[in-house]
Amino acid sequence: MPGTPWISLTTDYGLSDGFVAACHGVIARLAPAARVIDVTHLVPPADVRHGAAVLAQTVAYLPVGVHVAVVDPGVGTARRGVALATPGGLLVGPDNGLLPDAADALGGVTAAVELTNPAWLAPRVSGTFHGRDVFAPVAARLALGASLDEAGPAIDPAGLVRLPEPIVAADPGGFTAEVLTVDHFGNVQLAATAELLDGLAPTVRVSAPAAAPLPAPEPVEQGGASGRVAVRGRTFGDARPGELVVHPDSAGRVAVAVNGGRAVDRLGVRPGDLVRISG
Amino acid sequence: MPGTPWISLTTDYGLSDGFVAACHGVIARLAPAARVIDVTHLVPPADVRHGAAVLAQTVAYLPVGVHVAVVDPGVGTARRGVALATPGGLLVGPDNGLLPDAADALGGVTAAVELTNPAWLAPRVSGTFHGRDVFAPVAARLALGASLDEAGPAIDPAGLVRLPEPIVAADPGGFTAEVLTVDHFGNVQLAATAELLDGLAPTVRVSAPAAAPLPAPEPVEQGGASGRVAVRGRTFGDARPGELVVHPDSAGRVAVAVNGGRAVDRLGVRPGDLVRISG
Amino acid sequence: MPGTPWISLTTDYGLSDGFVAACHGVIARLAPAARVIDVTHLVPPADVRHGAAVLAQTVAYLPVGVHVAVVDPGVGTARRGVALATPGGLLVGPDNGLLPDAADALGGVTAAVELTNPAWLAPRVSGTFHGRDVFAPVAARLALGASLDEAGPAIDPAGLVRLPEPIVAADPGGFTAEVLTVDHFGNVQLAATAELLDGLAPTVRVSAPAAAPLPAPEPVEQGGASGRVAVRGRTFGDARPGELVVHPDSAGRVAVAVNGGRAVDRLGVRPGDLVRISG
Repeated sequence: MPGTPWISLTTDYGLSDGFVAACHGVIARLAPAARVIDVTHLVPPADVRHGAAVLAQTVAYLPVGVHVAVVDPGVGTARRGVALATPGGLLVGPDNGLLPDAADALGGVTAAVELTNPAWLAPRVSGTFHGRDVFAPVAARLALGASLDEAGPAIDPAGLVRLPEPIVAADPGGFTAEVLTVDHFGNVQLAATAELLDGLAPTVRVSAPAAAPLPAPEPVEQGGASGRVAVRGRTFGDARPGELVVHPDSAGRVAVAVNGGRAVDRLGVRPGDLVRISG
Repeated sequence: MPGTPWISLTTDYGLSDGFVAACHGVIARLAPAARVIDVTHLVPPADVRHGAAVLAQTVAYLPVGVHVAVVDPGVGTARRGVALATPGGLLVGPDNGLLPDAADALGGVTAAVELTNPAWLAPRVSGTFHGRDVFAPVAARLALGASLDEAGPAIDPAGLVRLPEPIVAADPGGFTAEVLTVDHFGNVQLAATAELLDGLAPTVRVSAPAAAPLPAPEPVEQGGASGRVAVRGRTFGDARPGELVVHPDSAGRVAVAVNGGRAVDRLGVRPGDLVRISG
Repeated sequence: MPGTPWISLTTDYGLSDGFVAACHGVIARLAPAARVIDVTHLVPPADVRHGAAVLAQTVAYLPVGVHVAVVDPGVGTARRGVALATPGGLLVGPDNGLLPDAADALGGVTAAVELTNPAWLAPRVSGTFHGRDVFAPVAARLALGASLDEAGPAIDPAGLVRLPEPIVAADPGGFTAEVLTVDHFGNVQLAATAELLDGLAPTVRVSAPAAAPLPAPEPVEQGGASGRVAVRGRTFGDARPGELVVHPDSAGRVAVAVNGGRAVDRLGVRPGDLVRISG
């Protein structure tokens, strides 16, 4: 790995404690030339699926390097710590489903090891902070060019824990897909890829038949075929202010947005709910 | 631009998604030697005025470099993307009023271009994420020393979109000024510059006649001439604990604070409201 | 200080204004080769004790360098600005109790100076933003290798302001200790060091007799000897989902956690409250 070694960090550690800085510090002590990009540390606590989605959608834009992800409710238990090689870089974190989607975005797993070499870890590994004591020191060594083989024994990539595939079902009248993420702006990203929009009319209907009833600024319309009218567009401004727009988002997924507003409040959905786009 | 190339980022992207990291990543891939300072990513969504104020008050303290700002509700529409040259550095972002105040803080716009050169942008520009696909790659190229002229055709600086000037009106008994920002500590910054405090007595009155009624921890006193008593001081501790102090803040503006408390809750104001200081 | 100069920043400035970036910018202008690690900027406003605890628990994991901390309700008043030398690095900040615990973690104060040399500060020091105008420029100069002596006159380390020691009282049946911090995950960290767990049974009782009644998702059990049952463990997963676990945390303190939940909500405590562990 010639040139600057790059490391990225994605965690649910939050920004109010010293946890993230301790990881930065461990890296800086072992690999002072490495530079670190924080993907986010505000993954909802223990929400492995959300962390996996954010990392997978971001990692291809990061410099080639070592990507550490820690959303790890099983820290200190029998779940394995792993490092994965891909054509586009290395991934380090718990074997709980967090890493495979990002590995796919980088070309797929070509090799995997379990992190068991004590010489690569902190002298004393705590029971609850493997970001600092396991994953950061491993990432620093890999960034410095150490061989994956030295981190621990090879494991079968096919045996890595994977999250269930999110639901996406196309039919002649449209498609139904799981809500994958809701972003800072309240945009609702579906698991459906943008190509599913191709056959649809310029105006579509958005319904959330399976949405749990949530308090919302306005009454949430429920029910199957009816739903809400939305413009099919390329960006928010293709709808009038306050109107719904269904568009291919910057990660290549179908997203529902409101021009100048928060689609998540309008639809009353959350990740895992089903949304139907028809028309 | 000899030495380390510096880039700063100011956005409303929030910190919970991968948006900021994608911008960092695009910069790192194109200009790995560049170093990036995050000004803030917590500008309230689409609040161009707030973003403009934060950047304008910070930029003079940053190293000379390229300052990217993205608060961009019109992303993907006909609004232009621009880069501005100033004696103190370059600015990159949407032409929606976000950049001119910062340009003024750096000595004024000496040249401006519209960002239309496709060779400078992402191979495929998304409709909704120009921070990643337009502004970050342009900033990286400028930080590497590429000429502004290559980014696109020159445009007339006089034609840049500017926000309306905030209201500041001095009179023999004091002055009335718009609330410009409210900071993390609840300090209320007025658009008035600190010199307006010069003629006033050691004790002044603060009133917010036009403030919209807001829920406040204590009843908000309304009405013109009366208002609340405040100490004129240099720092919070010049007032007794819990008391109001009117002081020149660290950006050279008049601010209203409470020693050990939150002035914004006391006054019941928000940005754009008028506050009168008299006495 | 050969090699990369490292600086860390710990403040209550929040992340929504330009305050943190202004500190980064001042450092970058004076010491462009220095690299900065943000410990946290979300110390609760003016909460010196919390800032002291976070820094003290993190600083030993950071690279040797200059650690700036600013939680400074007395900014601009007679409280001193100081720099402290320790065997493990330098500390810079207000003399209000924020720094000594971190100094202890780095081996103890070997020399201290008051920051009075105007040539080291901003040309014009504001009344309210000493992070930018005093502490950041001092840190930059120290990181560049300037002598502590030049920053100002030596002061007696014994005269530094220190916070009261938190309460920890062991007895034959267990121990009672003050809540030191509550982290992002709702884990409740006690001031007691982990050795106090050594003599206890595999199942203990946790009570919070002095906790102020707080709204909690479930009724808070109060009262002395009874308390709640908790597993003594090494990590969260040593308890069943939803159960309390008492464990040595990653900073070597006793912590109370809930597997998959928030102990702070379960116990209804806040920093400064007493918690008793018995059994």
